[in-house]
Formats: sequence, structure tokens, C-alpha cells
Amino acid sequence: MNSEIISVGTELLLGQINNINTRIISQKLSEIGINVFFHTSVGDNRERISSIFKIALERSDLIIFTGGLGPTLDDLTKETVAEVLGLELNYDENILNRIQAFFKGMHREMPENNKKQALVPEGAITIQNENGTAPGIILQTGEKIIILLPGPPNEMEPMLNKFVIPFLRKRLNNNEVIKSKILRFIGIGESFLEQKILDILRKQTNPTVAPLAKQGEVTLRITAKAKSEKDANELIEPIIQTIKERVGEYIYSYDNEPLEVVVGRMLIERRRTISIAESCTGGYLSHLLTNIPGISAVFDRGIISYSNKSKIEILNVPVEILKQKGAVSQEMAISMASWIRKLSGTDLGVAITGIAGPDGGAPLKPVGLVFITLSTDSGDLCEEYLFSGNREAIKRRSALAALDLIRRHLKTI
Amino acid sequence: MNSEIISVGTELLLGQINNINTRIISQKLSEIGINVFFHTSVGDNRERISSIFKIALERSDLIIFTGGLGPTLDDLTKETVAEVLGLELNYDENILNRIQAFFKGMHREMPENNKKQALVPEGAITIQNENGTAPGIILQTGEKIIILLPGPPNEMEPMLNKFVIPFLRKRLNNNEVIKSKILRFIGIGESFLEQKILDILRKQTNPTVAPLAKQGEVTLRITAKAKSEKDANELIEPIIQTIKERVGEYIYSYDNEPLEVVVGRMLIERRRTISIAESCTGGYLSHLLTNIPGISAVFDRGIISYSNKSKIEILNVPVEILKQKGAVSQEMAISMASWIRKLSGTDLGVAITGIAGPDGGAPLKPVGLVFITLSTDSGDLCEEYLFSGNREAIKRRSALAALDLIRRHLKTI
Repeated sequence: MNSEIISVGTELLLGQINNINTRIISQKLSEIGINVFFHTSVGDNRERISSIFKIALERSDLIIFTGGLGPTLDDLTKETVAEVLGLELNYDENILNRIQAFFKGMHREMPENNKKQALVPEGAITIQNENGTAPGIILQTGEKIIILLPGPPNEMEPMLNKFVIPFLRKRLNNNEVIKSKILRFIGIGESFLEQKILDILRKQTNPTVAPLAKQGEVTLRITAKAKSEKDANELIEPIIQTIKERVGEYIYSYDNEPLEVVVGRMLIERRRTISIAESCTGGYLSHLLTNIPGISAVFDRGIISYSNKSKIEILNVPVEILKQKGAVSQEMAISMASWIRKLSGTDLGVAITGIAGPDGGAPLKPVGLVFITLSTDSGDLCEEYLFSGNREAIKRRSALAALDLIRRHLKTI
Repeated sequence: MNSEIISVGTELLLGQINNINTRIISQKLSEIGINVFFHTSVGDNRERISSIFKIALERSDLIIFTGGLGPTLDDLTKETVAEVLGLELNYDENILNRIQAFFKGMHREMPENNKKQALVPEGAITIQNENGTAPGIILQTGEKIIILLPGPPNEMEPMLNKFVIPFLRKRLNNNEVIKSKILRFIGIGESFLEQKILDILRKQTNPTVAPLAKQGEVTLRITAKAKSEKDANELIEPIIQTIKERVGEYIYSYDNEPLEVVVGRMLIERRRTISIAESCTGGYLSHLLTNIPGISAVFDRGIISYSNKSKIEILNVPVEILKQKGAVSQEMAISMASWIRKLSGTDLGVAITGIAGPDGGAPLKPVGLVFITLSTDSGDLCEEYLFSGNREAIKRRSALAALDLIRRHLKTI
């Protein structure tokens, strides 16, 4: 069954609101094995709603509309769909009573224009709206299914989950399930990853394997269609194994988790305490880690030694290092990391120093140059990086690289 | 000029990511008076991209694609568009050099498959991508304009603002300008603000005045249509004056700037140095401030005193305060702020201590309880807050409240 989703509302076309409904419906349809091939958003305009509906009727078996079921003049979805299909609209007494009861429940009189929400195309199945006045509508013409749902997500979503998805499940001839796993990588570029697994990307049809570039991150989506979730997992597992054999060291999550969640959990589970000294990231690494509930069990403190004075005063950095090597140097990063570890008495000490830009770069020390050190009881590991992007991107990449250093260390424990 | 936006990417159809680009582009086109009539999302599939492009060519004057310009096999937008228009793809040496330089800048070899990003349809104008490797492309066939932009929003958005919008402005025949001003508020709820300016919200048609709820923030958008930017400004100004008279103390930006940008600029302009001691926000306040270029002139250091031990060791907090008042108390916040100020020798010292949750709350000290102190040479100001929301929301609201304390203080200088 191939489907598409049509969102009706001029506010979407003006960019005033996010299209939340389309994403929610897409996820739910994927889960039960219905392909979603198109999303369309169209304004509150009869002619354009009509034109997009006619196109959809030609290419899709299932068409889900959201929005345009309200009581006002510019709510046109139901009227336009009925007109295109040549269906009459009739008052449904039950629905009218329900709308009147809804207003009574709020101690208000039903406005006259809400009456039109009780109009139903002939032959329709209606879906009760527990959080508003517009009922949902299901129409079946030949092999096509057309479903109209209201626009407010808090009305739409319960109707989708309680009625539409079970209805569609029953209608599906097969019991196909679509299951996705998302692997997240760090320390490898998208192109390099692709070269390593080009044969898999090319050969695979079920499951499909597709790269998904996110800001400064690389992810792979593995999607299988099968008769059951168990069967889908059995298709996905061997592919993941093969990918793991080739590039496993760069994978930090098999469940689409952010890096700080993975590292935070590893620290807590392994009971390794940590302290952080940051310069160019300005507190961003500590911020990411302290987003994780329960991190206070292992995170002792952070120091943001932005000025040189503060590096000397709090982090005990020798003045000679500052003078001879500079604030952005391997020696500085090592000095910061080992001192914050000693000062705090933690198992791990992490330090980041670099040039986030846009100013402050020099030929030998350009914007994006970053040194990261992980200090442990078995020694200090320092890595040098050269990141591209603007100030915020460099801060983000530096913090992720530091998290990855911690992750690699914790894996060996 | 009627336009539509086509987003390419299977991840959209599976509901895996939000369609951020479409919303951003829609807003920008509206601002310069271009109607957006359709949004379409389509997967990484040559046949379906082709079909939707042909439909778009029939109904729209301007078609903007995002996504599908990457180096991988399932990036098909450019190839499909060129095929439908019957245009050849040729290597552009300049772009190839730029991509190679991009990789060199990161000390990496350019992978072979990135080469295809230097393929350009004949007759195209290219747009430089400062944050990635895929150039943007503008094609003009007859009266139609087709624009291809990359999918990652951090690459797409600068190209849109710096090149596409100015290009389209020049091409527009009419001189209608739609101008928006966005006022940002802090310290006032949306309903309360609405009550104060209800008459303005109701009466206005040009300019329109509309509240725009953002996460934890309140903003007002004032939009005017006029023949010129000057005329639009003259419509907007008196409305802003009226709003300012009623609720001016809560407005921190008349130009849709984030609070940290406003406060960072005030600190730099007034040359007031600052140091920060954070507990529950875990470095987020320092992170926000250090996003501002040039902040190193005034930001000396930050301390994230997460453990009680670290509060005593670095911030010199008396043990009695910890024992008698607890880590989350007015006394603690004042002690932290005044000590970080003394320790750093800065003009201002700021401290935040609170309970970000989800655990750690108690009847008298619930999750969301936060104390913020601003220490200056004229004394210490401490405010108590009770924020709602999850851990990240409480961190964010606390940091914004601290920034607002700083802002209010700097305004008096």
C-alpha cells in the first residue's frame, strides 16, 4: 500500500508553524509497513486543494489529509474532497449532538458555524474526536482509502493511534512490518564510511542501508520489511554485524542515541569519576554531560579557564608553558587535564584548548586548531584536531571529539 | 511570483527528521513577498523526484529544492533535475578545487565520490557553500527559476540568506516589501503579554501583530506590507512605540536576537568583566556567553561546582552553609557569586544553584527550584525561581534568567 500525506493550512506555507502531524503520521505508517511516498502542504484554497487531491488519487492507494476541518470559512478540506469525489454532504445527528455536548462541557453556547463540522460525506466512516469538535472521516472509493483528520496535533494523534492505525492494519493484506535501526558514528567522514561499505549500500534492497548526514555527525539507517518485528530484526542483524566488522570502532550507538548519553551512561555504569577543564568550548562539554540525569554521581566539577590568568590561578599551569608554547598547545592541554584530575581527585581529567574563532587565528595556529587531553592514572593522551566551520560548529565538534576520547578509553575498562 | 519548495530525502518520509529547511525558506520567501503555494517532500528516488519536478514546472514560477546534493549514490536531485530539463552535467574546475581545499583544510584526502559534487548543469549559476562541499545551483529556463540547495540546514541557511534571497529580490518585478520585526521578551508570560496589548492584536491589519510562541520564550512579530522598506518601517515604528510604552521593560531585543547576544554585546561595550559559578546549569550559561565572538575580552572564567566538595574547595563556600542551608539555597548562591567575583577580580560575579531533576527534589526544595545571584561592587542581588519542565528546560530557563539579571543590571550603568 503506497500512501501520501497532505497537510492543509496557509500557516504552514508561511513557515509560521512546524509540520508536526506529517512527521507523526509518517512514523506510524512506516511502523506498520505502509510506504509513504509524498508529503504535500497546501494552503486554505479550494482550487489548489482540489488539484493536489486529484494528483494524489492517481498515484497513491492511501491519502491522509490533516487540517482544514475547523468551523471557519477557510476550512475547506472536507468540502473539496467531497466535491472531487462527487459525494453529497449530510448532517450527522450524532456528531451534531456530540459537538453541542462538547460546548456544554465548557459552559459555552455552540457557535452557529460549528454546525458545519457535523456535515459528513455520504458513505463515510466517522472517527470520534475526544479533544475537539471536528470528527475524523474515512472514505473508500474503489481501492483507494481517503482519511481526513483535524490539524491540531493533540486532536489528531489520539485519533490516529486509537482508530486509524488499527483500521489500516486490518485492511492490509500482508502483515508487513518496517523496522529501522540507526547506527551513529564518530571519527569517520560520510564519504569514507561509504567507501568502506559501498558494496553493502549498493547490493542491499531488504534491508536497505542509507547514510544520513547530520550536523557534524554521520549516521546509517538500516531498514527492513518483514512479516513480523522478529523477522525484520533477523534481516537487520547480519548487516549490522558486517558493518561492525568493518567500521565498528567508529560506531558509538546502535540505537540512535546522542554521544553524551552513551558516554554519560558508560561513566555511571563503570563508576568512573570525571572532571573537566575547558577553554575554547566555554562549558559546552560540561553542559552536554550534565544534561544526563544521574551524572552528578560521577561528574565532580568543571573549570572554564578562559583567560590566561585563570589558567594559571586555578589550573596551576606553569607560566613557562603559556610563554613558550602558548594557551593553545599540547603542553597546555596536558597540563590542564592532569591538574584538574589531581585537584578534583577524579579518575579522569579532560581538557580542551583551541581557537574557536572567528578571530584569534594565526598561520601556525589557525582557527579550528584544538588540543584535547584525557588524563587517567595510566597517563595522558593528547590529540590534535583541525576543525572547520563557524565558532559554534568548532565548539560542538571539539566537545564531541572529547566525548569520543572518553568513550574509547572507557571501552577498554 | 508563485513558488514551491521540494524537500528530497527518504528520512523525511519515514518521519525520522523534522523538515526544518522548508519552514526557514517559507519564512524568507514570505518576507520578500513571494507566495509559497506548495511544499512537497519526496524520497531519494529518481522516478518520483522526476514526477514531482514535472508537476512543479507546470504550476510554479520558482521551484526550490533542498537535499539530495551529497556525494553518495542516493543523492539524486541534481542528476534528475538536469535530466528532466535536458541539460548536460559538466565538471566545474573551480568547484572541484574548492572541494579539494575543503578536505585539505581538514588534513584529509578528498574521497573519490565527492568529485560528483563538482558536476554542474550547463548554464547554471553556482552558489558557494561555506560550510560544506555541495555548491548551490540556480537554473533559469524561460520564465522559470529552479534553485537547488543542500539539505543540512547549517549549509543551506547561509546560502539562502547571502545569495538566494538577494538574487530573488532583484528578479521581482513588483516592489512590494513585506517587512517583519520580531520583539523578544523575557520575564513575562505569553497570556499576560497578550492581555496588555489585546487591543493592538485585534485592531491591527497592516502591520499585523502576532505572538509567536517559542520554547520557553515569548516573541511578537510585527509584519508590514509596503512599497518600500522605508514605508514598511514607518508603519511598524509607531506600533513598536506603543508596545514599548506598555511592556518595554520585558523587551530585550527589537531585532530577534538571542538574549546571550544582547548581554554579550552589553558586557563588551560597557567593558564589564564577568565570572560565573554554576551548579545545576552545568556550564550552560558559560556556553551561551562563549558563543559570542569577542567575549574573551570580558569573560574571565567559569566554575562548574557540581559536587559539594568542589563548592568548598574552589568556591570557598563555608561548610556551615552547606550543612545548615544546603547546596540549593539563597546563602549558597550568594556565597558562590561573591567568591567567584573576588577570586577572578571581575566586575560581576554570577552564580546559579538549583535542582534540575528529574531526581533530587524534596517537598521544601522541589525540582525546578533555582537561586540566582548577581554580585557587583554595590552588593549581591539574589532571586529565587521555580521553573517547570524537564531537566534541559530547567537548565535553559535558569541560564536565561541569569542573563536577564545581568541585562537589567547593565542597563542601569
